[in-house]
Amino acid sequence: MRFQEIVNLHPEPISLDRDALLRCINECLDCAASCTGCADADLAESDVRTLVRCIRLCLDCADVCDVAGRVVTRETEPDLGLLRAVVEACAVACVACAEECEWHAAHHEHCRICAEVCRRCKDACDDLIATIGHEPSR
Amino acid sequence: MRFQEIVNLHPEPISLDRDALLRCINECLDCAASCTGCADADLAESDVRTLVRCIRLCLDCADVCDVAGRVVTRETEPDLGLLRAVVEACAVACVACAEECEWHAAHHEHCRICAEVCRRCKDACDDLIATIGHEPSR
Amino acid sequence: MRFQEIVNLHPEPISLDRDALLRCINECLDCAASCTGCADADLAESDVRTLVRCIRLCLDCADVCDVAGRVVTRETEPDLGLLRAVVEACAVACVACAEECEWHAAHHEHCRICAEVCRRCKDACDDLIATIGHEPSR
Amino acid sequence: MRFQEIVNLHPEPISLDRDALLRCINECLDCAASCTGCADADLAESDVRTLVRCIRLCLDCADVCDVAGRVVTRETEPDLGLLRAVVEACAVACVACAEECEWHAAHHEHCRICAEVCRRCKDACDDLIATIGHEPSR
Repeated sequence: MRFQEIVNLHPEPISLDRDALLRCINECLDCAASCTGCADADLAESDVRTLVRCIRLCLDCADVCDVAGRVVTRETEPDLGLLRAVVEACAVACVACAEECEWHAAHHEHCRICAEVCRRCKDACDDLIATIGHEPSR
Repeated sequence: MRFQEIVNLHPEPISLDRDALLRCINECLDCAASCTGCADADLAESDVRTLVRCIRLCLDCADVCDVAGRVVTRETEPDLGLLRAVVEACAVACVACAEECEWHAAHHEHCRICAEVCRRCKDACDDLIATIGHEPSR
Repeated sequence: MRFQEIVNLHPEPISLDRDALLRCINECLDCAASCTGCADADLAESDVRTLVRCIRLCLDCADVCDVAGRVVTRETEPDLGLLRAVVEACAVACVACAEECEWHAAHHEHCRICAEVCRRCKDACDDLIATIGHEPSR
Repeated sequence: MRFQEIVNLHPEPISLDRDALLRCINECLDCAASCTGCADADLAESDVRTLVRCIRLCLDCADVCDVAGRVVTRETEPDLGLLRAVVEACAVACVACAEECEWHAAHHEHCRICAEVCRRCKDACDDLIATIGHEPSR
């Protein structure tokens, strides 16, 4: 995706590890789209009644990943406390969604994949938070 | 706003204080729109260069309030840990944005009002989190 | 809601009817929150399988109203063709969602109210588009 | 990105060309992130006052692409009129943003790339709309 080139051209780059930053944005985008897709696939399954909690958490996780991706993309005059709180909330949403999707993984392949994407996004959030930890908060 | 009637008709209401819940959603909506408006007004000011940090934090705060409002609106099968993390991130974003807007309050009336809305949204988030604290987390 | 004060303090107000503009933003916010709430209430109903299309269209309508509200709130350097396309898409989403919600209005009071909010938002979009029609497009 | 696997596992796939569908979602995600990044890079440039219109249109385009990507990702019980209106609005936003970014392409590489991403997203939207044209609207 070409947005990464744009992020790398920022005139005053944020003082965080570039790889961790780009990976976090990337995983947030993939996870937001995966959760939107998984909620939608759930809705079309014949056992939708058993998937209600999965739909709800996928909707939450899609929304939170979407916003975390936006906040992390912005490098101008960052507030690291805000960034940390949003990325932490994203990690919490990813775990909640992954755990629920894993319940349905044996019956629904889209849930199995969605859980994997959530776990990977959670790891990318944790890694980015770890690099914030070493920076003086502004 | 009529969305409150819909929230109050939920077949399985979330076990949180109704007033705190509705006030939090309402303040998140007002704060999201206020921050979108303040960032946009900043952009049209002749001293835009001094307002760069204000624009950036208003954009973040608008995005986070928007999502917090959505997550809190959803009452079906809630994950209270997720809800808490998102509402806490919202409170952090509101404080960061309010503090910056207050720097510009003497020169820009829209910043003065935006800061007030952010402070009120922060309080509504804190109040909702306090009622979560008394619930068993799921 | 106080965001209206901020919108009215814009240093270079957009050349559109103020009442139509503020009403459109207001209805978009109410409709976005109402559709988020209606989709969520649907999800908790025992007849969720009959509400699948309602959930899907409520999710779409919430997303589209959310963005239309943001675009209309921004008055700096507007592109009226873009504004028109987004507000028209919002009107289309509101009608699709209202028509579906009306099918369920007799059984679910939240669907009845949601349909009314969608219709009112559609009217506010139409009214704003009508005032754009009298402006030279930029 | 793995969300594509999830989209391809939908139990009742939408009757639109798969390649056009996936390409449209992909370009919307890239364009949303690119516009968020370009607006943010603009904000940090020393000539921010000349980039005000670019920032504003990038914010609009990011929001519209985000929602178009979500609507197109959903395959359950689609309303093709709604889908068409949203994708058309996205194409309009992409052109407006590309034209503005092109004005700044010689001075700012992030604007040059953002314009290219917008153009590519516009083409993907047009291609998806063309395949809708051949389907009976529901």
